[in-house]
Amino acid sequence: MRNIKLTIAYDGTGYHGFQAQKGTGLLTIQEALERVLGILTKEQVTVIGSGRTDAGVHAWGQVVNFHSKTRIPAERLPLAANSLLPPSIVVRKAEDVPPDFHARFDAVSKTYCYTIYNDRIMLPFWRNYAYHVPVALDTVQMKKACAYLEGRHDFSAFCASGTAVKNYVRTIESFRITQEGCLLKFAVTGDGFLYNMVRIMVGTVLDVGKNKLRPEDIPEILKAQNRVAAGTTLPPQGLCLMNVEYPPHFGKSHLDRGREV
Amino acid sequence: MRNIKLTIAYDGTGYHGFQAQKGTGLLTIQEALERVLGILTKEQVTVIGSGRTDAGVHAWGQVVNFHSKTRIPAERLPLAANSLLPPSIVVRKAEDVPPDFHARFDAVSKTYCYTIYNDRIMLPFWRNYAYHVPVALDTVQMKKACAYLEGRHDFSAFCASGTAVKNYVRTIESFRITQEGCLLKFAVTGDGFLYNMVRIMVGTVLDVGKNKLRPEDIPEILKAQNRVAAGTTLPPQGLCLMNVEYPPHFGKSHLDRGREV
Repeated sequence: MRNIKLTIAYDGTGYHGFQAQKGTGLLTIQEALERVLGILTKEQVTVIGSGRTDAGVHAWGQVVNFHSKTRIPAERLPLAANSLLPPSIVVRKAEDVPPDFHARFDAVSKTYCYTIYNDRIMLPFWRNYAYHVPVALDTVQMKKACAYLEGRHDFSAFCASGTAVKNYVRTIESFRITQEGCLLKFAVTGDGFLYNMVRIMVGTVLDVGKNKLRPEDIPEILKAQNRVAAGTTLPPQGLCLMNVEYPPHFGKSHLDRGREV
Repeated sequence: MRNIKLTIAYDGTGYHGFQAQKGTGLLTIQEALERVLGILTKEQVTVIGSGRTDAGVHAWGQVVNFHSKTRIPAERLPLAANSLLPPSIVVRKAEDVPPDFHARFDAVSKTYCYTIYNDRIMLPFWRNYAYHVPVALDTVQMKKACAYLEGRHDFSAFCASGTAVKNYVRTIESFRITQEGCLLKFAVTGDGFLYNMVRIMVGTVLDVGKNKLRPEDIPEILKAQNRVAAGTTLPPQGLCLMNVEYPPHFGKSHLDRGREV
């Protein structure tokens, strides 16, 4: 049995998120992938994603894996899959990985990008890929706010209420803002993310940019550990899963873990 | 009666082109604009475009004008219209212009951009805004081909067959290729364009890039004055109307034309 890792990009517009919602008839990325991989391999394929993305959220570097006995060489899988997939989903890369590789459990960090279109009028081409902020933003203050969110913290205040997780502590390795014309890109890398965490973090940083909050309020919000202390959840279309990292030299070190098969 | 010029951008995906197709029930840019301007002005508004764009073709700088007695100041019109328009259509600018300004008849040149995504795999975000060419292209040869198309020529070979125009002579001021990563942008400026002309011109230049034609074949194709001599018509989604030029100092010179009102 092979274990195949795919790096995929998708335009989340019009999809009900990544994760299959069996029996609902709702269109999801996972089901579209499983259907096409099922046709190619002539097997019932289950796709394991690095994590779910919400409806309307995009991916440039989502990672999934699936088990199969197919003899299609990995390097030929992308074109074969892309010829059957809708153009809104693209397999960028396929690799054979060790049998115990698991796209979700082995992920060590993820990078998301949230895009803000910061101009009075938003051009129509960006409406599904950015969130429109027509007012001026104080980038210097926003960068200070981002810096306060970096590091190891309890992110309870930045997690959608009603989520049942035990541990709200996550480490944000970096949270940076770059500007390209009227686009502000918030890139955040961390070892894990709570539900809606990026969209709430950027929403809170925007409140700083609008002078509704001071950067120094961020430590207080973190300390409060209460969702109502932070800013609003921004809409999904500005969010894109850029990259999922796995242990360096994964293949080798993974094989050498001494698993008994 | 005021005459108001609007500069608009739109995402042509999902529209049946610019021009109203009365009674067909098909969604067009012109009808969406007329409906919204009708609500704002409380008048029956007719919008005059600089020209039509086909289904799926985009615009960054389409120009239209309309006559109205509305008292809404021009500078307030964009936000007012945008609040009612679907997010796929945006009014970028509104200006009062002399009463005889006509978006179509006064246009002296237009610039179109055709975008090619030149990589083995096309990212899904570009599927409605670029044409995918997965094979290598010879840019040097394509630039030579573009140069042959610049100037004043009979473009019969580059006009969709079945068009009833009398004069196929047009002047292409410039036809340039720029590269941004895997995006190839073909920018063409001219005093007028025949039906499908840009899409056939870029299609023919691509044949040169694929070594199916030589740049030196272009003069022969022009001379043939026969549609079958040129390359295929590329699909609409790569095309965008970037800019429409009107006489310099238009307002003044226009007013001074000595029209008798």
